[in-house]
Amino acid sequence: MELKRLSRNVLYQGRVIDLIIDEVQYPSGNTSVREIAHHPGGAVAVPMFQDGSVMFVSQLRYPLGEHLLELPAGKLSPGEDPRMCAARELEEETGWRAERWEKLTSIYTTPGFCDEVLHIYLATNLVESPAGHQRSEGEFSMSVKTMLLSEAIRLVEDGEIRDGKTICGLLLVGRRLTGAG
Amino acid sequence: MELKRLSRNVLYQGRVIDLIIDEVQYPSGNTSVREIAHHPGGAVAVPMFQDGSVMFVSQLRYPLGEHLLELPAGKLSPGEDPRMCAARELEEETGWRAERWEKLTSIYTTPGFCDEVLHIYLATNLVESPAGHQRSEGEFSMSVKTMLLSEAIRLVEDGEIRDGKTICGLLLVGRRLTGAG
Repeated sequence: MELKRLSRNVLYQGRVIDLIIDEVQYPSGNTSVREIAHHPGGAVAVPMFQDGSVMFVSQLRYPLGEHLLELPAGKLSPGEDPRMCAARELEEETGWRAERWEKLTSIYTTPGFCDEVLHIYLATNLVESPAGHQRSEGEFSMSVKTMLLSEAIRLVEDGEIRDGKTICGLLLVGRRLTGAG
Repeated sequence: MELKRLSRNVLYQGRVIDLIIDEVQYPSGNTSVREIAHHPGGAVAVPMFQDGSVMFVSQLRYPLGEHLLELPAGKLSPGEDPRMCAARELEEETGWRAERWEKLTSIYTTPGFCDEVLHIYLATNLVESPAGHQRSEGEFSMSVKTMLLSEAIRLVEDGEIRDGKTICGLLLVGRRLTGAG
């Protein structure tokens, strides 16, 4: 064992994250503290139309105090399959369904202090849901925006799209479609 | 104001993150809670040699209980310039310095519950530091690994490199070098 856990304190159990404080021991015998923001994980859709345009959601991100342009995404419910989660979040946030799903990858958003993993899917063959979107009250600031993948990648390179999962999803789809690699 | 803060509780102030719990009010008048993992931000280097190979660090990530391959990176010290932080972390973690630095972008790692921003730089014209690396005790598990950018991007596409900032940095450098866009 490389890092021995001496004690664990679950300091907070919340809506999105729990905070866990561990006391750990290094191989040298010295001790230290590790903070873990425990997150249930989530799933992300890159919803793409046949004309090469991608659907985004724009919403207020409270920790930053600004609106961000992001791919549709959300937290896993207990026991939920990540692909089903991506499909659920896509429909809830945008009112669209996808008939075709391809896994792109899974990412760790910030592994130094958090165990969050996000599963990212390319979602194509999009059809409008008769029910429309079903946003929660917490998503009151959300709106849908659509733009060409090429334009979105330009916004990534210009530093205007800054959300990590969104950058990963867009650039992976960009590589897949151009056959780069 | 779209989301009104009614109260703030700084629940924990830690080594890497603080946990802040706000009570907020929606435009409807209903109230809810927002959890914020406050992080000082950080900087990331994509250290690249003239032959197209990139330097990584492999280390145990305690929240995940596994070793990850990542770009050299670390937290901003109070008042520190992000480019200086990237240079400091590169030298501390790998024992190498870069004579040329180019900003790639800044990313929000997980904006739903955290305000962390990471500033990512391409670092070239690499020279070995006479002092070698200066890892902290908490970095006892760290080692340097070098591979071609093309090979690293293949590992991203195969889902073997999973760290979000590392995927963003590699794919942005890949686009820049191939003139894609």
